[in-house]
Amino acid sequence: MTQPFFTLTRRALAATALTLAAATAAEAQAPVNDPLPSWRDGAAKRAIFTAIRRTVRQGTPDYVPPGQRVAVFDNDGTLWVEQPVYTQFTFAIDRLREMAGRDPSLGEREPMKAALAGDMRGVMASGEKGLAEIIAITHAGMSQDAFNDIVTRWLATARHPRFNRPYTQLIYQPMLEVMRLLRREGFAVWIVTGGGQEFVRAFSEPTYGVTLDRVVGSIGKTEFRLQAGGTSELFRLPAIEAIDDGPGKPVGIGRFIGRRPHMAFGNSDGDIEMLEFTTTGPRAGPGSGLGLFVHHDDGVREYAYDRESHIGKLDRGFGLAARNNWSLISMKNDWLRIFPGG
Amino acid sequence: MTQPFFTLTRRALAATALTLAAATAAEAQAPVNDPLPSWRDGAAKRAIFTAIRRTVRQGTPDYVPPGQRVAVFDNDGTLWVEQPVYTQFTFAIDRLREMAGRDPSLGEREPMKAALAGDMRGVMASGEKGLAEIIAITHAGMSQDAFNDIVTRWLATARHPRFNRPYTQLIYQPMLEVMRLLRREGFAVWIVTGGGQEFVRAFSEPTYGVTLDRVVGSIGKTEFRLQAGGTSELFRLPAIEAIDDGPGKPVGIGRFIGRRPHMAFGNSDGDIEMLEFTTTGPRAGPGSGLGLFVHHDDGVREYAYDRESHIGKLDRGFGLAARNNWSLISMKNDWLRIFPGG
Repeated sequence: MTQPFFTLTRRALAATALTLAAATAAEAQAPVNDPLPSWRDGAAKRAIFTAIRRTVRQGTPDYVPPGQRVAVFDNDGTLWVEQPVYTQFTFAIDRLREMAGRDPSLGEREPMKAALAGDMRGVMASGEKGLAEIIAITHAGMSQDAFNDIVTRWLATARHPRFNRPYTQLIYQPMLEVMRLLRREGFAVWIVTGGGQEFVRAFSEPTYGVTLDRVVGSIGKTEFRLQAGGTSELFRLPAIEAIDDGPGKPVGIGRFIGRRPHMAFGNSDGDIEMLEFTTTGPRAGPGSGLGLFVHHDDGVREYAYDRESHIGKLDRGFGLAARNNWSLISMKNDWLRIFPGG
Repeated sequence: MTQPFFTLTRRALAATALTLAAATAAEAQAPVNDPLPSWRDGAAKRAIFTAIRRTVRQGTPDYVPPGQRVAVFDNDGTLWVEQPVYTQFTFAIDRLREMAGRDPSLGEREPMKAALAGDMRGVMASGEKGLAEIIAITHAGMSQDAFNDIVTRWLATARHPRFNRPYTQLIYQPMLEVMRLLRREGFAVWIVTGGGQEFVRAFSEPTYGVTLDRVVGSIGKTEFRLQAGGTSELFRLPAIEAIDDGPGKPVGIGRFIGRRPHMAFGNSDGDIEMLEFTTTGPRAGPGSGLGLFVHHDDGVREYAYDRESHIGKLDRGFGLAARNNWSLISMKNDWLRIFPGG
């Protein structure tokens, strides 16, 4: 096991003191053993270090024992690229196309017709009901295992239109470093995503090191089915059980984790309630948890979008960040690298 | 960390060989390092040993890597006493009584009137709707944290009518040993209960060593609420979100764990689907998971009930156990002790 960075051993204390001294000198060079080498030394990085230190140092009012430390991460736009359209939606359209190849009648009705023609405006015109229909057709009517296989196969071949790389490589290296550091410091690291729980589970472990039972997401109804031949399966029904977005995020956290998180990373207005839940505990004030928003302000290396975006809109969140002392992570200024391996 | 018992080190192998040799000789004395000292050597104990060995031995077709080993336990009647009535129901009645002390009008209507009079037959006559009303009145209208405090306080003082001990001491010592052994062997140990998730979470960690995030249970709806003064809470609404019983158990397992279990312990017909899900995987046959039913056949030390019981009825399960090769654990014959500490 790697040596925890902040945990209270004498050696770690010395290292921590060094790192924090460096971190408080803005723009200082990263120390040799910097656990966040892809982060420029700045306010966001310091806020992360400070929050971890507060949580793991015994004897302080904010100390949390190792088994109870919780960090939550949104996925789309926080851990991986969500532009020009949510990856799961691209998956749905690809799958619809494949299904329509076998059954052309599928493409005769809206919104499937618009989706197959690549007319996203037409799809959006169908509203939530239309989107739900596309998701139902492409995501239900099979077992969980079969769905998992379909997603895994798709992820192995699909490529992002701009970066021409598999989607699972378009993850943010700085966030991988934070997740690794948090695990080393005794935090349970969870994904809390508006995306489909089973969709994200198909890649969460190899991609982020997040095990299946630590993925909280939107959930479709399933049914237990015993089959001839002595096997059984969970069958996916075309109905939504829970939407893990907005106020659904703290509800999902309560259900799956059962604790208020100590650190929450998001990037859009859909993450507001998750950050509120994290930072407005019974001990409100400076001692409560840390909330952070990734601000996509780097149109050169990734994308620049916020208030006007249809995907990952960050608007109301700006005002709340200022009022609640949440940290803004500037992709352009805080991140020395965006993606792993390049 | 304790030395795993079955994991493939040379020393463990030698120990395993010794233990298993002893275990296959029925009624043999437990070896000195027996990880299940409260179990008489018999078919159930041997089935547990064999299933663990199959799962943790590298190179066999049934080998499962450590991060993926899953065992699930029902709670009422499998981990703790459920007679003469489910503990959570006793809690609800006690709380109703306390509430009626402050607001006597509560006791004017059925089924609350019957419940306060101790007339369980009258309560049952109100059917599911009546029971749901009692649960709604006693379990909702407060935050998760407040509910947790209420349960914790109740558990600290309430005593079982027959044994005159706190409910959290009326847990089965043999099952604690199995849970400990499974953890040592790299299994994730989960509770999958028809009881309320938050009710069980209030004692699962100190009582069983099962953390909050590994309690799957029936779930009431909650709502995220921001409060004046900069705090927030999850507020319990008087509505059911999911019933984790019967076919709801494999559905809950899919949602929370995301994997088919390798071992499932239950005691009633409400656990049938959980055992089916565990033992009828894609690789159906002798290599699939192990299912076990605790059979309450010990009226002297605990209770004797099965086919005719209103609580924890085990009826259809007998036929399925025979057909599916599930193990029956005879409380009377297989368990040398029932409760911890005496």
